[in-house]
Amino acid sequence: MRAYHIAILGASGAVGKEICQILEERDLPIASLKLLASKRSAGEKILFRDEVIVIEEVNAHSFQGMDLVFGAVDEKTAKRFLPYAISAGALVIDNSSAYRLKPQVPLVIPQINREDIKKHQGLIANPNCTTIIALMAAAPLHRLAKIKSMVVSTYQAVSGAGHAGMEELKKQMQAELRGEALPIQVFPYPIAYNLIPQIGDFDESGYSSEEWKLQREGRKILHEPNLCVTCTCVRLPIMRAHSEAITLFFEDAISVEAAKAALKESEGVILLDEKEQAVYPMPLFASGKDDIYVGRVRASMHDQTHSLTLWCCGDQLRKGAALNAVQIAEAAIELGAL
Amino acid sequence: MRAYHIAILGASGAVGKEICQILEERDLPIASLKLLASKRSAGEKILFRDEVIVIEEVNAHSFQGMDLVFGAVDEKTAKRFLPYAISAGALVIDNSSAYRLKPQVPLVIPQINREDIKKHQGLIANPNCTTIIALMAAAPLHRLAKIKSMVVSTYQAVSGAGHAGMEELKKQMQAELRGEALPIQVFPYPIAYNLIPQIGDFDESGYSSEEWKLQREGRKILHEPNLCVTCTCVRLPIMRAHSEAITLFFEDAISVEAAKAALKESEGVILLDEKEQAVYPMPLFASGKDDIYVGRVRASMHDQTHSLTLWCCGDQLRKGAALNAVQIAEAAIELGAL
Repeated sequence: MRAYHIAILGASGAVGKEICQILEERDLPIASLKLLASKRSAGEKILFRDEVIVIEEVNAHSFQGMDLVFGAVDEKTAKRFLPYAISAGALVIDNSSAYRLKPQVPLVIPQINREDIKKHQGLIANPNCTTIIALMAAAPLHRLAKIKSMVVSTYQAVSGAGHAGMEELKKQMQAELRGEALPIQVFPYPIAYNLIPQIGDFDESGYSSEEWKLQREGRKILHEPNLCVTCTCVRLPIMRAHSEAITLFFEDAISVEAAKAALKESEGVILLDEKEQAVYPMPLFASGKDDIYVGRVRASMHDQTHSLTLWCCGDQLRKGAALNAVQIAEAAIELGAL
Repeated sequence: MRAYHIAILGASGAVGKEICQILEERDLPIASLKLLASKRSAGEKILFRDEVIVIEEVNAHSFQGMDLVFGAVDEKTAKRFLPYAISAGALVIDNSSAYRLKPQVPLVIPQINREDIKKHQGLIANPNCTTIIALMAAAPLHRLAKIKSMVVSTYQAVSGAGHAGMEELKKQMQAELRGEALPIQVFPYPIAYNLIPQIGDFDESGYSSEEWKLQREGRKILHEPNLCVTCTCVRLPIMRAHSEAITLFFEDAISVEAAKAALKESEGVILLDEKEQAVYPMPLFASGKDDIYVGRVRASMHDQTHSLTLWCCGDQLRKGAALNAVQIAEAAIELGAL
């Protein structure tokens, strides 16, 4: 079996570190692993399968000889460096939003639109965390009865803002208990004991960039150009798993039983739905797990036959980011696209 | 001006104490104030307007001579003792869910259905916190374009479970920081750094009792027997203000501008909606305030003319409970119904 020369750009960040860990756990055959980051993180050491790897500062020549490059940096850094990786002949799997909506770039959740991988021209985009978690729950139902529109409210963890976001919540909680002023750097307002109903910037429509992602990425991944997603994205004092309350409006009739059966059979989805035993997904228990947990599946009050409401949770750093990226690579290998 | 003999049943609880504080702040004329609770809290002292009042153990004769009785106890205790208060000739304003759906009992948010107070037969029910906060935001828009249905996701504070709920969150946060096991007594799972998508018990429909409240109480308060509310109620690690993401579906067309103008003019509502300045409601800032804060008003993605999405926050103990109860009493006086 062929082994691959792999690089991670942004290896010192929350998603980059998670990609390292997931590569350690899984069977993707690795010939070499190169860890890249900005000057600030260069020299930092990472232990990977009993081997110490030193993070190198990225430059235009860093990607020579690489087969596979994971991008785990912001949009601006992705646009600056990932074209070098493509030029060097690597397959790039990018976690940023830089290329997600480009027509020639596949945007992939392997359990949903795996075949799109074949169309890549050197880069495959990893969807936004909120999109992945929502669609892992919604796609099995879309296949049953075609979703026309969705109303989504999110309950998003601070890990979406990286290590810095997690550190800020911890520090604010400590300050709160000591009765001290809360340090505010990452989020626009205190997040300890608070919610912030803004993730990203608002445009003229009144929606935030995070809310637009689920609308636009959802259409692309499901190949449904008319799908409508009305989303409210909210940041919460939760560490690293996102939750979402989703109401789905279907073209065809769908029963709760059929929906549960479809979710139960879905790869990467765990149905946790036993109301008598108070069994339902919660972020504390979804943290660190690979699957998306779905529960509280019920008919909507306003339409008992063509609308369902459900609740789902998933680890934002794993399936919401790093794991999905690695699964794209695995699928690319299986499809002969790498 | 006539002054009233007032009793609070449940004076040692979170809502009872808040009623005391609100009576201190406002102008309802008080001839005497009697504080009642279970045996466990009897003897506890409360400072009210420079006077020490000792909490008395409630019994069947406690309500003799009372004009106005606030019930701030659970359903069972309300059913046991409040009938004595009605028999004694008092007007009872009950915060529990015991009588809310009885046809002869007005269920009132004074800014919305004040006239219903006139029909009371000795007892007026105070709606559930989630209902009050949602309807304070929705009713001004209902008057404009008639709401057919709503999809609501709640972000509810631990104060909904009383003092014990708030203590549990604090203790769990302290234990979490010390790396100790989390003490769990009030909520079914840890609430620190977690969400619990269950408030109350589930029935066969898959909805929790808390979710049914907004459906059933909403119909009664708005006098709309066909209103449909699809609700997901979630408990969060937030102290005492609830937030709600609400998508409204209207019979008639409604614009964002008209909706904002209506909210701006509504008594008890503050419109906080300036996207360029990152101004929107948040629980940390709604805590301890009397008004319901509404913002992020925008057209829904799936229907630009007949559907709006918004975000609202309100203090659960004040407008969500104690303040609304006192406002019912004030309105009853103005209407000559007390």
